[in-house]
Amino acid sequence: MDWRGCRGAGVNTGYGQNDRMPLSDQAQADYFDFLRFPTVSADPSKAQTMRECADWLEKKFEEMGMKAEIVPTAGAPVVLAKWKKPGGLKRKTVLIYGHYDVQPAEMGDGWTGDPFEPRVIEGMVVARGSTDNKGQIFAHMLGVADMIRSGGAETDVVFVVEGEEEVGSDNLEAVLRARKEELACDVAVVSDTNMAGLDKPTLTYGLRGITALQVDLTGPSHDLHSGVYGGAVVNPITVLTRLLAGLHDKNGRVTIPGFYSKVRKPAAWERKAARDLGVSDAEVRRQAGSPALGGEAGFSAIERIGMRPTAEINGITGGYQGPGPKTVLPSKASAKLTFRLVPNQDPKEITARVEKDLKKRCPKTVKIQVTRHHGGFPYFCDPKKGFGPAAVRALSQAWGGEKVHFLLEGGTIPIVSVIKKVLGVETLLVGLSQPDCRAHGPDETFPIRYLEQGAKMNQALLRQIAKA
Amino acid sequence: MDWRGCRGAGVNTGYGQNDRMPLSDQAQADYFDFLRFPTVSADPSKAQTMRECADWLEKKFEEMGMKAEIVPTAGAPVVLAKWKKPGGLKRKTVLIYGHYDVQPAEMGDGWTGDPFEPRVIEGMVVARGSTDNKGQIFAHMLGVADMIRSGGAETDVVFVVEGEEEVGSDNLEAVLRARKEELACDVAVVSDTNMAGLDKPTLTYGLRGITALQVDLTGPSHDLHSGVYGGAVVNPITVLTRLLAGLHDKNGRVTIPGFYSKVRKPAAWERKAARDLGVSDAEVRRQAGSPALGGEAGFSAIERIGMRPTAEINGITGGYQGPGPKTVLPSKASAKLTFRLVPNQDPKEITARVEKDLKKRCPKTVKIQVTRHHGGFPYFCDPKKGFGPAAVRALSQAWGGEKVHFLLEGGTIPIVSVIKKVLGVETLLVGLSQPDCRAHGPDETFPIRYLEQGAKMNQALLRQIAKA
Repeated sequence: MDWRGCRGAGVNTGYGQNDRMPLSDQAQADYFDFLRFPTVSADPSKAQTMRECADWLEKKFEEMGMKAEIVPTAGAPVVLAKWKKPGGLKRKTVLIYGHYDVQPAEMGDGWTGDPFEPRVIEGMVVARGSTDNKGQIFAHMLGVADMIRSGGAETDVVFVVEGEEEVGSDNLEAVLRARKEELACDVAVVSDTNMAGLDKPTLTYGLRGITALQVDLTGPSHDLHSGVYGGAVVNPITVLTRLLAGLHDKNGRVTIPGFYSKVRKPAAWERKAARDLGVSDAEVRRQAGSPALGGEAGFSAIERIGMRPTAEINGITGGYQGPGPKTVLPSKASAKLTFRLVPNQDPKEITARVEKDLKKRCPKTVKIQVTRHHGGFPYFCDPKKGFGPAAVRALSQAWGGEKVHFLLEGGTIPIVSVIKKVLGVETLLVGLSQPDCRAHGPDETFPIRYLEQGAKMNQALLRQIAKA
Repeated sequence: MDWRGCRGAGVNTGYGQNDRMPLSDQAQADYFDFLRFPTVSADPSKAQTMRECADWLEKKFEEMGMKAEIVPTAGAPVVLAKWKKPGGLKRKTVLIYGHYDVQPAEMGDGWTGDPFEPRVIEGMVVARGSTDNKGQIFAHMLGVADMIRSGGAETDVVFVVEGEEEVGSDNLEAVLRARKEELACDVAVVSDTNMAGLDKPTLTYGLRGITALQVDLTGPSHDLHSGVYGGAVVNPITVLTRLLAGLHDKNGRVTIPGFYSKVRKPAAWERKAARDLGVSDAEVRRQAGSPALGGEAGFSAIERIGMRPTAEINGITGGYQGPGPKTVLPSKASAKLTFRLVPNQDPKEITARVEKDLKKRCPKTVKIQVTRHHGGFPYFCDPKKGFGPAAVRALSQAWGGEKVHFLLEGGTIPIVSVIKKVLGVETLLVGLSQPDCRAHGPDETFPIRYLEQGAKMNQALLRQIAKA
């Protein structure tokens, strides 16, 4: 397989062309084939599709000259692929992680065309998964394929491509544990984060963690008539609003006792790096379509998102939901909460603190039940240490000497903490996602020239890691 | 038609028998026929059933010797029936109001038998509408029928029986206005309230009013990822919980400025009468199945329900409602509120105060929209004045000299205020409903001997009103 420009300059995308490594028709055809698998991991009816896509990936890795294998799991299979320089020389090994599963996508969600039939519009590939994560992992595959074809990469390479990232990566940790020896590596590379902007090379050096729980309150044993009992029987919705309103103080700080006790204080350079991203509060407000921003006093929007933990109410429900009024005093009310965590907060500890606080503040007029859901640790990898400087050099090189941006991502990629825990290595987060790529939304896009750009970044990264 | 005991003592109900005016087989058969009409006014497919039941009522009134008429409306028809003593003597006129429509009833709701096929179990008639309101209005019909048969009642009588009480009586006010001259009367009588207990004659001398509104908050223009924006973009659910938690202070008082300014202070005898009802806080708690009661400090449960206004959250919704967690920062959150009002609060004024307060307290991080729903005035009829003493004498007489209880009902019967406004008369609320009759619930019941008891009460009432 040769994805380089064997038949000329490839597709003219109109989105700017790179003068080196033009994308071949074959590479684009393969990328589009990859996108055509409707690998919606949340949809149980797609089990066969997941296997077909994994088979397709295995075949591509083999065509690249890698040793590929499909590892079945209780859910979607994991695809592993290894390339080792012949001769048994002791070299560094880089693990590249990605996922072939995608978020759900239906025409009714606002897509302007079939989400699983890729279209190129003004240089942008429009399809579910075009960015998240098929485009990004495929760019790494292009980079490695090219190096193998040209005589071999400067490090050994292992790909781990799973099919359950969008549903919590439930089965990946067991695979990493079972294959711990084979997957031994010096560092991991993940392209599943945002860039600061188009052609602004970006190293994401931290992720927020998360913990999730549900609160269920029960007041009266059955729904009551609000006229017949209202005023004497306490409404569980009222209690719930008081419990939840009490999660923040008037300065936007979370009130749970001890919530901030382990929060890492960012260094001065980090706050400067956050400013240097050039993302103003006004820009965040515009993206969100929010009347005005809010949050913890003393921080900019981008700092609140990257550096500070949150208490979020993801859902609330209770009583009558239909049209018009109904004079019910309901029996139950409930809410779903998530807390975004920053280093060095511990999801289990925070969950325990939240549960304790809610139960302490809950009056005896209702019964409270707290159900704990999944958690994920926050992640922090100092870009001044370890393979950080190598990543910075590689990013700058791949973008022709551009200044590298440093980002703290507000979201969570639990697998990064799992990689550290199981394989003992840090992860370099070198995403190719654009802020407006609409990952998880309708009409998800990826700049087609970023397949080549990502391949170039992959090659620079492996070179720099080899030298580090 | 003769509903008196023409064929002996009638049905032995096992629930105690009255030695006078035994219920005839014919009366019970007619009552059961009345109950068999599934007159669920909330169900648009029942339009024909509503007309058939109105026709049946018209025929019964005619059989009683009254002049009956069906008045069509935009919804279910209203049945009017008049009886005037021949000779044109100037006498008092009593308007008796009731309704032939019922709440929905499905086997799936927990009924132990067909809700529209009446069964007698241990002296209790089990059927939808058995109490609310077919049993109660039918008892009045029995009383009047018996008096007409025996030579005439001591007052002129007008029945107004509507078919839309359970859906807001939308069309009744127009009928009252259009027939204002014909419906001219000295006092109205309604049996649609609870008794303090079985064989505890009860005069309900006040009802709470109501005003209803919906609050809709919009934060970001679309649902956001709670990782990518959480901490900087304000969550409308969080704002909603703060707005709603702020509706009460720590003493359970409503915080809306001016909310209590027109609240009538009950007289000392009223608080004593409330105690005399013998309904303890523990009993209210037991009925509600609530872990513990709450509410406004300084009042018993029965006082909170009857004498004090409330702010109730009837429904709340926002964000993710499915199983498990979802990391969404939602665009919208909303709640349905009702406020129960006491004399002399004005629904429109209170709604305006609530809307003003919510808008004032709402931060600029979200957009707020308040939608006003229906309202109903509170009602108060001093039992020491007007026809109150006549009603008290009649109730005592009908129950063999029992002490009469005075009740302030927590619910709302908007039509009572409409009668006062349009016809200019007070309403005597002499309900026959038992606290455990399960009106609006599954297996609604009515003591079968209360048809006779109610008829006796009706006759005593007309006699006492004539004399007052």
